[in-house]
Amino acid sequence: MTPEEFRRYGYQTIDWIADYLARPERYPVLPSVKPGQLTDALPARGPEFGEPMDAILADFERLIVPAMTHWNHPGFMAYFANSSSEPGILGELLAAALNGNGMVWKSGPAVVELEQVTLRWLRQWTGLPEDWFGTIYDTASVGSMHAVAAAREAADPDSRTRGTPPGLVVYASEQAHSSVEKGTIAVGIGQDNFRKVPVDAEFRMNPDALAALIERDLAAGLRPCCVAATVGTTSTTSVDPVPAIADICERYKLWLHVDAAYAGSLMLAPEFRWAFAGCDRADSLVMNPHKWLMTPMDCSAFFTRRPEILRNAFSLIPPYLRTPDHPRALNLMDYGVPLGRRFRALKLWFIMRTYGREGLAEILREHVRLAQDLALEIDADPRFERTAPTPFSAICFRYKGTDDENRQIQERVNATGEVFISGTELHGRFSLRIAIGNRGTGSEHVARVWELIREAV
Amino acid sequence: MTPEEFRRYGYQTIDWIADYLARPERYPVLPSVKPGQLTDALPARGPEFGEPMDAILADFERLIVPAMTHWNHPGFMAYFANSSSEPGILGELLAAALNGNGMVWKSGPAVVELEQVTLRWLRQWTGLPEDWFGTIYDTASVGSMHAVAAAREAADPDSRTRGTPPGLVVYASEQAHSSVEKGTIAVGIGQDNFRKVPVDAEFRMNPDALAALIERDLAAGLRPCCVAATVGTTSTTSVDPVPAIADICERYKLWLHVDAAYAGSLMLAPEFRWAFAGCDRADSLVMNPHKWLMTPMDCSAFFTRRPEILRNAFSLIPPYLRTPDHPRALNLMDYGVPLGRRFRALKLWFIMRTYGREGLAEILREHVRLAQDLALEIDADPRFERTAPTPFSAICFRYKGTDDENRQIQERVNATGEVFISGTELHGRFSLRIAIGNRGTGSEHVARVWELIREAV
Repeated sequence: MTPEEFRRYGYQTIDWIADYLARPERYPVLPSVKPGQLTDALPARGPEFGEPMDAILADFERLIVPAMTHWNHPGFMAYFANSSSEPGILGELLAAALNGNGMVWKSGPAVVELEQVTLRWLRQWTGLPEDWFGTIYDTASVGSMHAVAAAREAADPDSRTRGTPPGLVVYASEQAHSSVEKGTIAVGIGQDNFRKVPVDAEFRMNPDALAALIERDLAAGLRPCCVAATVGTTSTTSVDPVPAIADICERYKLWLHVDAAYAGSLMLAPEFRWAFAGCDRADSLVMNPHKWLMTPMDCSAFFTRRPEILRNAFSLIPPYLRTPDHPRALNLMDYGVPLGRRFRALKLWFIMRTYGREGLAEILREHVRLAQDLALEIDADPRFERTAPTPFSAICFRYKGTDDENRQIQERVNATGEVFISGTELHGRFSLRIAIGNRGTGSEHVARVWELIREAV
Repeated sequence: MTPEEFRRYGYQTIDWIADYLARPERYPVLPSVKPGQLTDALPARGPEFGEPMDAILADFERLIVPAMTHWNHPGFMAYFANSSSEPGILGELLAAALNGNGMVWKSGPAVVELEQVTLRWLRQWTGLPEDWFGTIYDTASVGSMHAVAAAREAADPDSRTRGTPPGLVVYASEQAHSSVEKGTIAVGIGQDNFRKVPVDAEFRMNPDALAALIERDLAAGLRPCCVAATVGTTSTTSVDPVPAIADICERYKLWLHVDAAYAGSLMLAPEFRWAFAGCDRADSLVMNPHKWLMTPMDCSAFFTRRPEILRNAFSLIPPYLRTPDHPRALNLMDYGVPLGRRFRALKLWFIMRTYGREGLAEILREHVRLAQDLALEIDADPRFERTAPTPFSAICFRYKGTDDENRQIQERVNATGEVFISGTELHGRFSLRIAIGNRGTGSEHVARVWELIREAV
């Protein structure tokens, strides 16, 4: 492609995106495609010779866009809603053009240093200890797996050489994200050694139950090594009592990992810092700018105050990657599994500068306010009940009827294409779930989803 | 940012990229920054309030670009050289704008299906079995870790619940990439149970030595579970004898993983298929479009003929992600550690269509031809010697002098800013290493690096 052609198609793509972002509502938030429909519409074989970009862009609009679930749609209120943003998109565009790779400092000084700079800014903005170490992974699942691996290393430094010893135990609440359990499986501790700690009526880990489980495991000759607390669980956004859990971790010398993948962004707004009390006592913490900081997938920030443990667990320097030691030339490959590292910090830097801390905090505040208002509306309708507290921007509730009736409400609402809400299971019953987190979502969208739900009864 | 502002800054960014790609040589391939220099040039704290995009883009040019190692520079001949391409950049731009997330089918039908379609095309283009399953990870390191985890699961289905059993053993050659060893550490098998199989004079795994190690381990009561063969090792691009290794794996019922991260792309050109004989007998194989298929970081293709093993190892479906079963609605989260998945297939689709199989093959052929020509030149100069065969596009060689003299040559050459070559250690001595893989690299760049090297003696 000549520079002129790139310019032409680049402008055309920018125009398409400008229109798309200006009104994502032109598309239904959930597509109407059936499984396999896109696959069947595409050629069974890749082309032998090149095709013109006009044809590709036309197919993009004709086939790909209608098969997208539109995460950038203001009616997206499922899972944890999020959005990309113009500065994030431009940052990603430049990162793709530079194609930097920060596996070692020398292979990408800017990749490595900007990652450290943006994560330092993030620690300052969130009130996390400034001397912690940070690195960016693709997802919180990968971050949490590294936390469990670090806990294993801290509990038994021979793990690296001899393999995961038998009897290590990892704890998280019944409401913790599945990735903690998956990480426990991945690093060879095993699902039988993953304890789901009971929660209280508000879905928060019960620290007494945690302590009791630890005591039981110790009495059985097992070796507790890690507790994963969650600030903002995936189903209900409940907040585990981190100070009490930190006490227990200190008493038993366990690695404390905090999963703040969703809620962590709220630390940017001081009035929400209450939820993060005790997090400064953690050994590691994960939060996802790609969830609530307007950052395109993927960008998950992993912090630890004990980077030397990660290094001990993972550093392996082959001859073809040896570089002279320098105290300020960090080789990020030493801290985990992935070797190649794309320039994820660039988009984060663009976003942090474009919005500023206060600009981002203001968006989050508004999302929480919208959710609180909707919670009051739900409470005021006798046909509905909330099924969990609403500390932040996600609301769990149900129609006072059968699970099937609730599922039908969800289906009818989602079938409109105007909104996308998800569901979860609480106390053995199906709950509807609305998560507000898209920057385009305003009071009119929240009013509309509530209207659609009431109409669907 | 208003749509008009996005359009303006978007055009400006596209213009910058068009100019950058038209002449990346305007920048030195290796930057002259010192460790910490960029960090010190950036504010110690992130901004409280937003800043204008003009300022951010200006800082990008003033501070970030001069601190980049330019992987898109035609003089980049270190590690495995690669490049992004215009269609890949446009695909990445659109992926960032759509911000899709393919954790389950419903959350991104196009994300999930296009990944399957492009990987199917890739299997056809490479001659790999069409019925294999494929998924995209960020890096080959993560792919290889999943291969070792699958091998663990296949060897002992109780691993998932009880943890990694003691005594499992993983084998790879002395020349295998460090990620196989790292994956063995990560999944809890342990470095002591990782065997570095000796290689022959041409750096290929010795299958007799492999069989002998397996027999020794069996006699010691250990449980061999996995062999990782490499087609195109990282130091010398040597090719392990996969057919003989596959025989051994079948005899002992071991998981055969093939690391073809670099060379795998060459399967697109039929004349290189010899190097991949036996790969159709593997249990898993990894190849990186982000290495040699003009794809911006990151995009690593992982194939397996036994996806049910990965599923058994990793599937965990929490209530908030339950979706109705449908045979064509794949939930990719079930096959590994990462839950969130960005739309990596979009750029790959743009690239596969823009170039076609033959267009990509032709670029690779030319790179190999350039490397072969340079190898002949090196052979013809009595002051130098090649230190390994050159089957593909990477050349290992040395000045017939001390290691220090060779290191000085490397430093002098790299200090010109015109080229970036790396080094490695072979038979205990330092070798220079030139890897050709940037789409802009032509005979003039290869002539120039050879000229610079001879001048540096």
